[in-house]
Formats: sequence, structure tokens, C-alpha cells
Amino acid sequence: MEINYDDIKVIGFDADDTLWVNETYFREAEEAFAKLLSEYETPNKIDQELFKMEIGNLGLYGYGVKAFTLSMVECALELSNYNLPSRKMNKILDIGKTMLNKPVELLDGVEEVLKSLSKKYRLILATKGDLLDQERKLEKSGLTSYFHHIEVLSDKKENNYAKLLKHLDINPGEFLMIGNSLKSDVLPLVNIGAKAIHVPFHTTWAHEEVTEKETNGKTYKTLNSLRDVLRILPENQT
Amino acid sequence: MEINYDDIKVIGFDADDTLWVNETYFREAEEAFAKLLSEYETPNKIDQELFKMEIGNLGLYGYGVKAFTLSMVECALELSNYNLPSRKMNKILDIGKTMLNKPVELLDGVEEVLKSLSKKYRLILATKGDLLDQERKLEKSGLTSYFHHIEVLSDKKENNYAKLLKHLDINPGEFLMIGNSLKSDVLPLVNIGAKAIHVPFHTTWAHEEVTEKETNGKTYKTLNSLRDVLRILPENQT
Repeated sequence: MEINYDDIKVIGFDADDTLWVNETYFREAEEAFAKLLSEYETPNKIDQELFKMEIGNLGLYGYGVKAFTLSMVECALELSNYNLPSRKMNKILDIGKTMLNKPVELLDGVEEVLKSLSKKYRLILATKGDLLDQERKLEKSGLTSYFHHIEVLSDKKENNYAKLLKHLDINPGEFLMIGNSLKSDVLPLVNIGAKAIHVPFHTTWAHEEVTEKETNGKTYKTLNSLRDVLRILPENQT
Repeated sequence: MEINYDDIKVIGFDADDTLWVNETYFREAEEAFAKLLSEYETPNKIDQELFKMEIGNLGLYGYGVKAFTLSMVECALELSNYNLPSRKMNKILDIGKTMLNKPVELLDGVEEVLKSLSKKYRLILATKGDLLDQERKLEKSGLTSYFHHIEVLSDKKENNYAKLLKHLDINPGEFLMIGNSLKSDVLPLVNIGAKAIHVPFHTTWAHEEVTEKETNGKTYKTLNSLRDVLRILPENQT
């Protein structure tokens, strides 16, 4: 089905794994964590237990590196049967700090796309995670000036987006969201009457995965590269 | 000096220790932490080391309970000379979780004051800390409907306020901020041409303390109770 983007006035961008690399750093951290605890369990089991711990703590801690670090600490205690050497615990804190200090690596074509779209559309950034960490990444990215509004959300469900659009006085029919997560950047938008474009990243966190049933009958476009957005939006050929 | 509030159109409120109890919970947590580590150091020394750790991590972790918990973890490792039993580490995580699960205890007169002021002024909430935790507290407080805008800031310095006022299209001369912290809720506002009222809480975190030199020559009012705000703002007698 052809999707018509003629009414779009405002475009929202996800940040992590849409504008810059993020999940890769979490995967590296998970590997370092599994290696550190290799005397207690297999890497596979450690991955599973850490994921369970993160999901269990999600309601209380939310998203982001600090939440992830606290879940690593708790998971390591459990996996070691409460017999974890302090030096290992300290290394877990270091894994978290290393993540917070990572450089921001822009994905291919990001600057070109934002520059081009910002001439015709109002751009906003809608991300979730640690407030301070997301602000720091945006500043490091050098992309701040392209955005009319920046919102760090505690979650990206339908009601979070509905509130944001209402607050910014944006009609859902005039809003297009672009992001790598079907669960967080695409489906909630489609469900509230906005449009969405899915640009997958090569790695997806299990928590962000969706079933075929959830996407069944939903109208959105999937593109291989952010650059392709320029091709499909009206009067925006470069 | 008599301060004139006739031009005020928008009033900003701090949340922690202005609308509801917060610092008290941190003090309880610090006490529990010191008790847990009493075999390694005196309570006084433990307090000092934890404070140093928090300040050292502030740039990386920011404010809030998750940052505080991670600093407790790191501080406990150091104080035990990297010989901390895992059971104690687990108790530290519990101290943090207990804080996140605390009920919201409104301070005296809060609801009455917000109800009255919201009839004449546009009210906004400006707080710092964990995004998710602050949203949760606001929801528990039942005060959401009094505020036109809610902003969780990563810090409360002059530039954070200047950006917020610009974003909300508020003239500093028409803005009054009310809060318990001279450093975060009063001085930055006075310095950018807005007005501020200081309503001290009985406990102040050392990091929020200011020197006499910093307040010297600055014009702001200090009130004993939030209720007194009603008395000094024009045409607002209850």
C-alpha cells in the first residue's frame, strides 16, 4: 500500500540506534559482564539472567545505563550465590562507567538527512533513557541545532507520545516518527493515528522485539537506510 | 527591600523538599548505609566518604536515587578495602530500592497553595533527578493537574533555567521560582532576572549549601512556610 506523506509537518526522530550507535555498546558490556562471571555460569545463561533482572527492575529503575549497571550488580550477586569478590564488583561499575563515557558515533547519512529535512519540516527528538546521559550524547553529537524540541521520555508507549504531541500542539495526522524500534518508535505512533518509518539497526534488544501478530495489519514503511527517507518524502529529493 | 510581584504571570515550583519530603529519605538511607558498614569506619567518616563519592560521580551519574545507589556501592567497596561481603552489597541495593518505593508525603499547605495560585497564575514544576522517579512521585502526589508544564532538568543552573524559560516563551521578569534550595531554586533565577522565593526545608544536602558571599546583594525573599506565599503575592489573600 502506498503511504501518503503530504500532510506531514513535524518529524520525530528516535536517537539511540537511529541517529547514533547504542545497542552495540550494550552488547559489548554484556559480553564483558559474561566474561567476568564465566566461573559461575555459561555466557548464554548469564545473558538470560541479566535480561531477566533488567526486565524485573524496569518498573523501578527505568531505561538507561545506570539502571543497566544496577541490574548487573544485582545479577552478579545472584549468579555468584552471594559470594562475589569485591574486585569483580568494582569491574562491573567500570563497565557501566565505560558505557557512559563512550563517544557518540553517528550512523551513516544522519547529518545529511537532518540538514535536508530541517529545511522543510519541524524536527523533534524523542528518546528514552537517562536524562543526563541522553543530553550528553546529543551535545557530543553536534546535532542539537537541527531540532526544535528535544524530549527525553521515561517510556515510549502510546500515552507518552499522545501527551507529547498534545503538549507540542501537533496533530497526530501531521506527525511522522522515524526510528529503529518497532515497539517504541513505530507501533505506538501508528496506533494513535500518526505515521511512522522503521529503519532497523543491525542489533535489537530482546525487550524491543515484537511479534508478527503485533505488526499485522499496521501500516508503516521499513527502509534500509535513513538516507532513503529523503527519497520517499515529497519534494525532498536531494 | 520591598519586592514587587505585580508583573509575575508564571510561578515555578521545585518539587523535592518544596512540595514533598525527600532529603529526609536520603538521610535515612545514609544512616542505614553507615550502620551497615560500621565495622569498617565511624559513621562520620562513612558520611564524608559517601558525600565525596557522590560529588565525584555527579558529572557522570547526575542526580537522583540510582546515581546515589551506584555511589553507595562504589563507596562500600572502597571502605571495606575491596573485601565487602555480597550480603552487605545486596543490602545496599535494597536501601536504594526502598527509597524508590517510598510514599510521597506532601508538605504542609501544599495543596491549598497550589489550588489558590493556579486560579491566577500559570504554574510549572521544575525539578531535577531521575526522570522516571520524579514522574512517579508527581503521579503519587496527585498534584499533576495544577501544573501547565512539568520539566525534569538534568541540573538547575542559570543556563538550564534560561533555556526552559525561552522554550516556554516566558519573560524572566514575569517568572517567580519557589523552592527550598538557595543554590538550585533561588540564586540562578535571581541571576537571570527572574524572581525567587526561598522556603527552607529543615534539612539541606551539603551539596546544595551556599556561602554568605554567594547570597550577598542578591534580592529574594525567605519564607517560613509555603502558605506565606499566599500572603505576599498580590490579590491572592485566601
